[in-house]
Amino acid sequence: MNIVELIKKKRDGKSFAAYEVSFLIDQFTKGIIPDYQFSALLMAILLKGMNDSETSALTNSMLNSGKIINLSSLKGKKVDKHSTGGVGDKTSLIIAPIVASTGIYVPMISGRGLGHTGGTLDKLESIPGFKTNLSLSESMKILKKCGTVLIGQTKEIAPADKMIYALRDVTATVESIPLITASIMSKKLAEGIDGLVLDIKTGNGAFMKSHRDSIELANSLISTAKAFDKKVIAFITDMNQPLGNYIGNWLEVYESIQVLKGKVKNDLYTLSIKLAGAMIFLGNKARSFQTGEQIAKDKIENGDAFKKFLEIVGLQGGNVDYINNPEKYSKSKFVKKVHSDKSGFIKEINTYQFGMASLELGAGRRTKNDVIDHKAGIVLYKKIGDYLSKNEIVCELHSDSRKKIKLAEQMIVDSIKISKTKPPIPKLIKKIIQ
Amino acid sequence: MNIVELIKKKRDGKSFAAYEVSFLIDQFTKGIIPDYQFSALLMAILLKGMNDSETSALTNSMLNSGKIINLSSLKGKKVDKHSTGGVGDKTSLIIAPIVASTGIYVPMISGRGLGHTGGTLDKLESIPGFKTNLSLSESMKILKKCGTVLIGQTKEIAPADKMIYALRDVTATVESIPLITASIMSKKLAEGIDGLVLDIKTGNGAFMKSHRDSIELANSLISTAKAFDKKVIAFITDMNQPLGNYIGNWLEVYESIQVLKGKVKNDLYTLSIKLAGAMIFLGNKARSFQTGEQIAKDKIENGDAFKKFLEIVGLQGGNVDYINNPEKYSKSKFVKKVHSDKSGFIKEINTYQFGMASLELGAGRRTKNDVIDHKAGIVLYKKIGDYLSKNEIVCELHSDSRKKIKLAEQMIVDSIKISKTKPPIPKLIKKIIQ
Repeated sequence: MNIVELIKKKRDGKSFAAYEVSFLIDQFTKGIIPDYQFSALLMAILLKGMNDSETSALTNSMLNSGKIINLSSLKGKKVDKHSTGGVGDKTSLIIAPIVASTGIYVPMISGRGLGHTGGTLDKLESIPGFKTNLSLSESMKILKKCGTVLIGQTKEIAPADKMIYALRDVTATVESIPLITASIMSKKLAEGIDGLVLDIKTGNGAFMKSHRDSIELANSLISTAKAFDKKVIAFITDMNQPLGNYIGNWLEVYESIQVLKGKVKNDLYTLSIKLAGAMIFLGNKARSFQTGEQIAKDKIENGDAFKKFLEIVGLQGGNVDYINNPEKYSKSKFVKKVHSDKSGFIKEINTYQFGMASLELGAGRRTKNDVIDHKAGIVLYKKIGDYLSKNEIVCELHSDSRKKIKLAEQMIVDSIKISKTKPPIPKLIKKIIQ
Repeated sequence: MNIVELIKKKRDGKSFAAYEVSFLIDQFTKGIIPDYQFSALLMAILLKGMNDSETSALTNSMLNSGKIINLSSLKGKKVDKHSTGGVGDKTSLIIAPIVASTGIYVPMISGRGLGHTGGTLDKLESIPGFKTNLSLSESMKILKKCGTVLIGQTKEIAPADKMIYALRDVTATVESIPLITASIMSKKLAEGIDGLVLDIKTGNGAFMKSHRDSIELANSLISTAKAFDKKVIAFITDMNQPLGNYIGNWLEVYESIQVLKGKVKNDLYTLSIKLAGAMIFLGNKARSFQTGEQIAKDKIENGDAFKKFLEIVGLQGGNVDYINNPEKYSKSKFVKKVHSDKSGFIKEINTYQFGMASLELGAGRRTKNDVIDHKAGIVLYKKIGDYLSKNEIVCELHSDSRKKIKLAEQMIVDSIKISKTKPPIPKLIKKIIQ
């Protein structure tokens, strides 16, 4: 096979056979196809698309570039959740312990913060001592023992994805449904799971800004999951405002603790229950979503979920003292309260901007080598539809730098729109697709 | 400016400002933008296009990556011709001496054979001693002395084009109208010309297979030439059969000599007169195309054109003995006559296949390092619309290898279609655009 002819094929809008996709991924990962040819191919794929068979073939080739974890020795279903990422999205920290406490295995491989969004690994690492870079054999021991493990992508898992993603990132070829699908699914399928719940974020704080794109991505992910005989449920959920009220790594762990203890019942709680309910259903521990949700609620109320969280933190080297007594955690040097300069209802939040303000405060990375300040971030008191009196507190900014707070404050103020009349409140769960 | 944002811009179908194009070409030629980013950009350009201003800006940046020859010291107009290439297309060898003999300067920078097509430089180098790799100062001396010079692209001329072309060649991004336009025009504008005649080939032996694409390319070239205040005329001409009757390097020089001596008045003669006439018109030596054509014909009849050809061959180091006595040139070891196995009219010639058969015989290169056999090639006795009796000779194959002749013969036989009824004959000049 000739690589130029294959690029031409995709460029001209034709479809690849599975063996052609497999050849391309194999030759690229071996370094035989150079980056400059592969990036032209990626651009052709982004602009001309891939059908479901091609996307499955791509996922399969990327999956098989690495190790597929064999969990057959564990009796019981293995189910995971994947979110496409947003601002304040910390459901993994809540869902994994809930679902694991029902006897379903949750082998969760997560990522780091990307641009304006946070990453589960960064949040977990804000817990002193918590290790996410465990070897596969250590991870398996923990998974077997407590029913869940929360780790990062290892070198053994889908190495082709890592290589391809690095190239996509610098060639403006990230925003492609088939490429996103194969990237997500190759990693998730490597976990050896039976079922997967997808949380596709849509809105001004999501990577998929439009409802239409998010539906398209959901369908692509579902079709690929089914091609691999996996049970799957996709939720299209709102990201037109931060999820929950805390943004920033330790701040999000703190909020998760409150939800796991049953002390907070906000949108974060609602979504976590929904997603956990669907996982419990897929894991055959409930006959319907509704029963699954009820079980999830019970696990919070009876303390099992919080106990499971303490267990996993302990097993992964984290200091559980901070989970039991979160007030012990060190605070940012400066905590600035942002007041409203007028009265009215919050109509709109530029969630991307909000995420960037949190990054500015120290909660995120601009480049791979930036060091995160785990304490930094934002506590949001009001959300869309809430009324603000003049001079009422909208949010708190946490940072060790006065200069950063100043910059972030301006970004926050610019990102919130106030109206005199009560606006419609965005629906949290927009669609469920199976 | 951020390169990823610029790739995104083109990917999303937006237009570049001139300063953005200039930044991209400058940073790429300096090696700051790596190949893998530039190739993604090239694919986005191929699939999303460029408008006339972008194409002019691209041409300008590529032109200014190198030296622009200053011909202002030469009194008189400077006019060149460019052909998009085909099989048996040797008009440059005939046109340059005709036009130079009228007092117009013809500074002609040509290329080498590419795939199934021949290249002017390879043809000229079949003349023993003929040098095409002259320095710019040597070239200027010859141009001044005899009114024309026939050379290859030097390192000083549009180096950005050379770098970009090398990348396009291996990333399936050759077939893009704006990229082709900028590649052609950056080199032609560097010649310091006042006017340009374009010969856009269309048909099964051309790079532009469809009439529509050839018109689009013509319009793009014309618009770019005009943006640089150059006079321009484009001919859309037929390449559904080889031009003339000789294919292969020395064989084409031989045919050119016959035309220059006024001994042959075939389609090659007709097209050469048309193109030369247009150049003479652009060079202000005739008030109309028709007068230009008459002058061109006269230059052949009165021997001036042939004399000028002898002069340029001599000045560029070629042995004029072979021009005066072409029968002295060494012959291929084997000359195989191909006979028709049935009677009828030639209806169709797969000209691409014909070109590939000539390459197979030794007249072309598969890779850059292949050595050309200057004697090798094909003499075609019959063309579309001609009647063939059974066993009549269709063509002669010239090669030093019996094996190559066998392979080429099969290709030739497969490429010619015979019909019982007289087919329509392709029109040589399909359109003239100014």
